[in-house]
Amino acid sequence: MSSGLPELDRGECLRLLAGAAIGRLVFTHAAMPAAHPVNFLVDGDEIVFRTCPDGPLLRAVNGVVVGFQADDVDPATRTGWSVLAVGEAYEITDPQRLAELGPRLPTRCAPGRTAHTLAIPTRRLTGRALTHA
Amino acid sequence: MSSGLPELDRGECLRLLAGAAIGRLVFTHAAMPAAHPVNFLVDGDEIVFRTCPDGPLLRAVNGVVVGFQADDVDPATRTGWSVLAVGEAYEITDPQRLAELGPRLPTRCAPGRTAHTLAIPTRRLTGRALTHA
Repeated sequence: MSSGLPELDRGECLRLLAGAAIGRLVFTHAAMPAAHPVNFLVDGDEIVFRTCPDGPLLRAVNGVVVGFQADDVDPATRTGWSVLAVGEAYEITDPQRLAELGPRLPTRCAPGRTAHTLAIPTRRLTGRALTHA
Repeated sequence: MSSGLPELDRGECLRLLAGAAIGRLVFTHAAMPAAHPVNFLVDGDEIVFRTCPDGPLLRAVNGVVVGFQADDVDPATRTGWSVLAVGEAYEITDPQRLAELGPRLPTRCAPGRTAHTLAIPTRRLTGRALTHA
C-alpha cells in the first residue's frame, strides 16, 4: 500500500520489531476487524507469542492468515515507525524449539493450563517511517 | 470475544480512548489484514482522525466497516488495557463541525493538499483490562 511515507526494508522492519515488546495481532473475529495486543519476540523470520488455552486467540488465529502490527509513534511530533507483518499463524509443537523459546517468552496461565506457543512467519513484511513533522 | 479478562464498560472504553493520542485503524487491504497508526480524538461517540488525500487510508476506510484499536500495555508487568471499536467510517463534510474539529486535530499535508477528516462511529466498543500479572 503506497503512502508516500519512507518505506523500510525487511531487515530494518525485523530490527524494529525485535526492539518492540508489544505488538498487535490483526485478524477477523465474527466477520469484524479485530486487534489484540500481545507480548512477542522475533525468532529468525518469525513472530512468536504465547496464549493461554482458555483464551480466544488460539482459535481465532491458529492456521489463519493474520496480521501483526507494532509501532512506536511520538504523539507530540507524530514521528516514529509502524511495521506490519502478514502470515499464516501456526502452533509450534517441536519440543526442542519450545524448550529454547520458553525462558524468553514467559506466559502465566491459570493453574493447570499450559500456554500454547504460536508463530507467524513474516511472509509479507512492510514498514514505514512516520514523518509528519 | 470472551477472554476471561475483565471487560470494560462503554464509558470506561471511551474515557481510555480519549486519553490516548495514538490508535490504529484495523482494516483489510488487498484481501489482507492491515493496521495503521493515526493521531485521533474522541468526539462524542465517534473516533475522528485526518488523512491526506494522497495517502492510502482515505480509499481504504471511507465507507467501510473498520476497526480502531488503542492500548496501553506495560511490557514489564504485562498489565494495561486494550480497546477496540468497530464502525463504518465516513468523511465529515459539515463545515461547522470541521471548523470546530480543525484546531483540535492538526494534520500537515503536502502543500496544496487539504486533509480529509474521517469519523468512525463506535457502533461496537469493547475493552479489556490486561492483568496477566
